[in-house]
Amino acid sequence: MEVHQVVSGAAGGEVPARCGAGLFSALDKVRRALVAFGAKLAKIARDDPRRVAHSLKVGLALTLVSVLYYVRPIFINWGVSTMWAVLTVVVVMEYTVGGTLIKGLNRAFATLLAGFIAVGAHKVAYLCGNNGEPVVLAIFVFLLASAATFSRFIPEVKARYDYGVTIFILTFSLVAVSSYRVEELIRLAHQRFSTIAIGVATCLFTTIFVCPVWAGEDLHNLAAGNLDKLADFLEGLESECFRENAPGENLESKPFLQVYKSVLNSKASEDSLCNFAKWEPGHGNFYFRYPWGLYQKLGALSRQCASSMQALASYIITLTKSQYPEANMELCLKVRAACGEMSLNSAKALRELSEAIQTMTAPSPARTHMSAAIRAARGLRAELSQDADLAKVMHVAVIASLLSELVTQTKKIAESVDNLARVARFKDPEDTQKDVVINVVS
Amino acid sequence: MEVHQVVSGAAGGEVPARCGAGLFSALDKVRRALVAFGAKLAKIARDDPRRVAHSLKVGLALTLVSVLYYVRPIFINWGVSTMWAVLTVVVVMEYTVGGTLIKGLNRAFATLLAGFIAVGAHKVAYLCGNNGEPVVLAIFVFLLASAATFSRFIPEVKARYDYGVTIFILTFSLVAVSSYRVEELIRLAHQRFSTIAIGVATCLFTTIFVCPVWAGEDLHNLAAGNLDKLADFLEGLESECFRENAPGENLESKPFLQVYKSVLNSKASEDSLCNFAKWEPGHGNFYFRYPWGLYQKLGALSRQCASSMQALASYIITLTKSQYPEANMELCLKVRAACGEMSLNSAKALRELSEAIQTMTAPSPARTHMSAAIRAARGLRAELSQDADLAKVMHVAVIASLLSELVTQTKKIAESVDNLARVARFKDPEDTQKDVVINVVS
Repeated sequence: MEVHQVVSGAAGGEVPARCGAGLFSALDKVRRALVAFGAKLAKIARDDPRRVAHSLKVGLALTLVSVLYYVRPIFINWGVSTMWAVLTVVVVMEYTVGGTLIKGLNRAFATLLAGFIAVGAHKVAYLCGNNGEPVVLAIFVFLLASAATFSRFIPEVKARYDYGVTIFILTFSLVAVSSYRVEELIRLAHQRFSTIAIGVATCLFTTIFVCPVWAGEDLHNLAAGNLDKLADFLEGLESECFRENAPGENLESKPFLQVYKSVLNSKASEDSLCNFAKWEPGHGNFYFRYPWGLYQKLGALSRQCASSMQALASYIITLTKSQYPEANMELCLKVRAACGEMSLNSAKALRELSEAIQTMTAPSPARTHMSAAIRAARGLRAELSQDADLAKVMHVAVIASLLSELVTQTKKIAESVDNLARVARFKDPEDTQKDVVINVVS
Repeated sequence: MEVHQVVSGAAGGEVPARCGAGLFSALDKVRRALVAFGAKLAKIARDDPRRVAHSLKVGLALTLVSVLYYVRPIFINWGVSTMWAVLTVVVVMEYTVGGTLIKGLNRAFATLLAGFIAVGAHKVAYLCGNNGEPVVLAIFVFLLASAATFSRFIPEVKARYDYGVTIFILTFSLVAVSSYRVEELIRLAHQRFSTIAIGVATCLFTTIFVCPVWAGEDLHNLAAGNLDKLADFLEGLESECFRENAPGENLESKPFLQVYKSVLNSKASEDSLCNFAKWEPGHGNFYFRYPWGLYQKLGALSRQCASSMQALASYIITLTKSQYPEANMELCLKVRAACGEMSLNSAKALRELSEAIQTMTAPSPARTHMSAAIRAARGLRAELSQDADLAKVMHVAVIASLLSELVTQTKKIAESVDNLARVARFKDPEDTQKDVVINVVS
């Protein structure tokens, strides 16, 4: 009894202390996690302060539209339909003006169209008597929802009217189905459309007049930024590989070998920005019906360029100093100098083009850097053609080298599939053969 | 008068005839457009019959859920809240099981969470008296909507819970705002949640049990299909460029030079399929927690391979027969044969890997084709290293060639920017200088 008391007494003194330490360390962990999270949020806000503005704009639009609820005369007139204004603001508000415009117009027109068709369907179903009505309505809903869903697989519809089709199905089903219970269908449809129109108008007002974010401007800056990234790669190449005292080693960790990668993946955001930009009214230097499609063409060329850079990069990485040829030193130095010229001048030309886009000034017709790069490429070709044997074999040799690079990449793919087969426990081909044998035997 | 009559008589005979002909040709045009549209729809359906099944499934789910409206006891219990079941089905039904699951779970949990918080906000606002209540509610809506919108800029939230955040804002605003007018808030929230749960359950039932489309399966087939496309390119290369009697001309129009392009743009759909697949329950050969992430790694390698192919393709196009070297014929023939070996065997290896994925059988460890390709690459290197000068210069020469290809691409970019500057009427740099001069003078 005494022993027990002593033990429990000791434990009683230790446990709170341990608990306290544990609690303290847990609190410290939570505090650290919160600080890290706060820093992350701050970085997101700093990277693009328009994000904060957008968040506040959504809050503003919602608060504006919820006033409808609080004002007594409006509420008595529209009743529960006021809800649709709130709903519209939440789903229609997008980051860019163009995005909001597309969604708002899609919503408004799809609601109008579906409302008309649904009222028609109701009239037809009404003729079928009390028992027939729900059956006819259900058939209508089934047919229209199926047809509208199928239309979303048409690429043109998917690109432009995807949201509109959703709203069409939604409105048609709601109006058609509720027509069975609601007496004053036309009044209800009218109320709903007015509230949706008010919601769309609130969204457009806040996106256009409070710190607007134009998709067109973002597309424009994306194009210029992509060209800058391509220039970064070429500049890095020049300073790390072709300059006289260039290190030319440990290239894998250099940032310039990663910079073009975001250009390769820019297609999706470019396409959606272009789609939005086409709907935006004129703003700043961008007039209505500005040739936005040309940015997509420029983007495709930039991505092709980045693709070539990726091929070059995987080749460059394997080029360590030791592999630099020692025989025919003179020619090699010449080639190296020409490579430096080509990359530096191309980089400068790209920077010039990027600046021309940013300032919206026509690029200077002189093109000093571009012609210097072309001259260097031509000079190299002329230089090499003096060594007849070399020049003539080179083209084939380049293709052979690229192909052997492809073989290496195929090997990597094979290893990746092996890994997948192991982790995902693919069937063993020998087991399968055994199964077949057993089947035959049995 | 007589003349006039005659003329008008003649015209009277002609006009209906012309009208008839015009009407007929217009009808014919409409008929043709309809036939073309029908053919297009039929092609979309033939390309993937699951699209038709999906459309019918959406119709079925909507019809099932609209039954709630027609059954009197249910309607009396839930009233207008039944509408939320219809709304949920329309927005939650996605093409794949994983997509529907993510949207459904997001919707259900976001509604539950936002509902609880909104009821809490209502209790707080209620304490502030009749005049203070709308003001406090408006402040809550503003703060929560802004904060939730900002959270969508966090990449992790954007990828997984984007839809959930929308629903959170929506539910919170609706419940908080309508709490000012609606008496039985808890009952309303309960009704709404039950109807949403019913909507989600209906969607899940139809997507999982009626012809399910699994995102995981699509991802799996996409990976195998990409490898097949890479193999197509290499096979085309072998037969069109490196075989003994290969034409090697007019390569630009060949389909094999286009086939890898869809691989380059597969990242977006791969990422979303992978995101969906992770949520799907086990099905067929794919167990729950299947290593879907490995498909993304394989996809990245495939895209890098396609990128190298693009670089090679732009190089191959410029290779016409006339450019084939005539000097050093023997070496060239050897290089050509080695190229043929490399591309054919790599293609076969890729086909084998694609088949291994399709049948989910571990690829044979022998790797006859892969080793043949590697052997050919090694043999070529050995062959070339006999000509010491050539071997040592080649690596540098390849880089130089790739760079001069980049110069050509930069030139194309410059032309594209020029075109943009002309069409979009960029400022003339000389005009700007003049403006500056005028400003200085004035």
